[in-house]
Amino acid sequence: MADLLTKTLKKYQGLVDERLKSYLPPPGKYARQVHKAMVYSLLGGGKRIRPVLCLMACKAVGGRPVTALPAACALEYIHTYSLIHDDLPALDNDDYRRGQVSCHKKFGEATAILAGDALLTEAFSLLSRKTILSGLAVQPRLQVIQEIARAAGIQGMVAGQEADLTAENKNVSLGVLRYIHEHKTGALITASLVSGGLIGGGRRGEIEALRTFGRKIGLAFQIKDDLLNVEGQAQIMGKKTGTDAKRAKATYPTLLGLDQSKMLGQELLFEANRALRIFGQKALPLIQMGTYIFSRET
Amino acid sequence: MADLLTKTLKKYQGLVDERLKSYLPPPGKYARQVHKAMVYSLLGGGKRIRPVLCLMACKAVGGRPVTALPAACALEYIHTYSLIHDDLPALDNDDYRRGQVSCHKKFGEATAILAGDALLTEAFSLLSRKTILSGLAVQPRLQVIQEIARAAGIQGMVAGQEADLTAENKNVSLGVLRYIHEHKTGALITASLVSGGLIGGGRRGEIEALRTFGRKIGLAFQIKDDLLNVEGQAQIMGKKTGTDAKRAKATYPTLLGLDQSKMLGQELLFEANRALRIFGQKALPLIQMGTYIFSRET
Repeated sequence: MADLLTKTLKKYQGLVDERLKSYLPPPGKYARQVHKAMVYSLLGGGKRIRPVLCLMACKAVGGRPVTALPAACALEYIHTYSLIHDDLPALDNDDYRRGQVSCHKKFGEATAILAGDALLTEAFSLLSRKTILSGLAVQPRLQVIQEIARAAGIQGMVAGQEADLTAENKNVSLGVLRYIHEHKTGALITASLVSGGLIGGGRRGEIEALRTFGRKIGLAFQIKDDLLNVEGQAQIMGKKTGTDAKRAKATYPTLLGLDQSKMLGQELLFEANRALRIFGQKALPLIQMGTYIFSRET
Repeated sequence: MADLLTKTLKKYQGLVDERLKSYLPPPGKYARQVHKAMVYSLLGGGKRIRPVLCLMACKAVGGRPVTALPAACALEYIHTYSLIHDDLPALDNDDYRRGQVSCHKKFGEATAILAGDALLTEAFSLLSRKTILSGLAVQPRLQVIQEIARAAGIQGMVAGQEADLTAENKNVSLGVLRYIHEHKTGALITASLVSGGLIGGGRRGEIEALRTFGRKIGLAFQIKDDLLNVEGQAQIMGKKTGTDAKRAKATYPTLLGLDQSKMLGQELLFEANRALRIFGQKALPLIQMGTYIFSRET
């Protein structure tokens, strides 16, 4: 079973990696650095969890995964933009990301800010491009744009990022921490699943099942991130560990302890899988992916 | 004639100002500062040139301007995001904007970066919202998203911004300067006109006329901006003047001289108006707006 996941994962990651660059418009005549920075951050590693979930969700509802590739890549553009901006000195001030120096360290702050802006914009350009997703009815395409935009904006990722910054060096409650995680990470992971389902032509019940799965798995993903920051190994992770503790950042391990955090993650995983019963056997890749997300070492 | 423009301008600016805030989603429970910063920058003055052009274009093709209001506001979100990010220390490092301290001076860099990100994202969220533009066929809505995203991204505004930063303290050719202006300002102005035309149900020839008008008027707008930076008065402008010269920034006046720059602007205005002949009398508001753009004092 683990081998089956590895195979599917590799295949999907390969499909996404192939297109991440080719979907980008070419650099402008007098503007090449931002394009270089975008490609640097896009192709500098990354597990492609959001794109893979998008493709898997498309398949789970009976669609052809390849039709969801543009949306999958758009999701990775948005995720990558968020990493570039989060790493900036004014925000998390991280020098390393995905095993290489972070975008602003390599290209300077101005270029990094613009590269993030451009990735976010190109996500929506890709989602609305005429030649893309052309087999898909127009109405679900608008729904996909709406899902993704809402997950990334002031009701989603940006809100999570702000709450996270505000929480630094403060005693925060579990409620606040949950808010941070659900918005900062969970929203876009959920949007990945829902948009895959919409592109695959999923019925309303299926879409809602994917949404529930996304919410649970998104929180489990972030708890795992917190755990890795405590227990993970920097050389495997490609970024520093122990940084949360140094920043006195609230995390699940600091609030609940290691053991209870792991138990909560397992519980969420269980609930996530339960939401997929509607798909029967077709849920298998998503269930495996959930397990992978909570057992990963990077 | 000038009075007619003043009246239309005030009416359209009023319609836009009313909705700029109300179209935004409410702030998150634990994330209020970014929302505040967005509203601060959105409502802190501004001539609403892009939204007004969008509404006028909609009317010129026979549509009801009110149907273009969401797109008009989305364009202002994108314009405002670009100002917030451009003002950051890593980019232009401007302390004043639209007569008030710039966003990062008021709220800090982290919040300003996130406010820009959120405005950009909410533009696309607004354009794809179910309850918005619902009278419009879905296909033109996708086209509008595509036009605006392309104008804002790596083939448009971001490319212009990069080329502008690269050009600082360098001797640049007129070709490069034109590239900067056409991308940094012209692209979004053109997209404003084209999207208004698409929402109003314009025919292909009408859309292309609006596109030509946008390109000419966009460049004229930027030449005027350069001229105001030399000749304008800081207290009227709400921001410092003479900053281009201090930064040894290439501008039309430095490359062509004041007189020739003015002549070029007039020439562009003439060509812009010629493109509108297809609209007959209906072109009047746009022609007046073009004249206003080139005679404004702020």
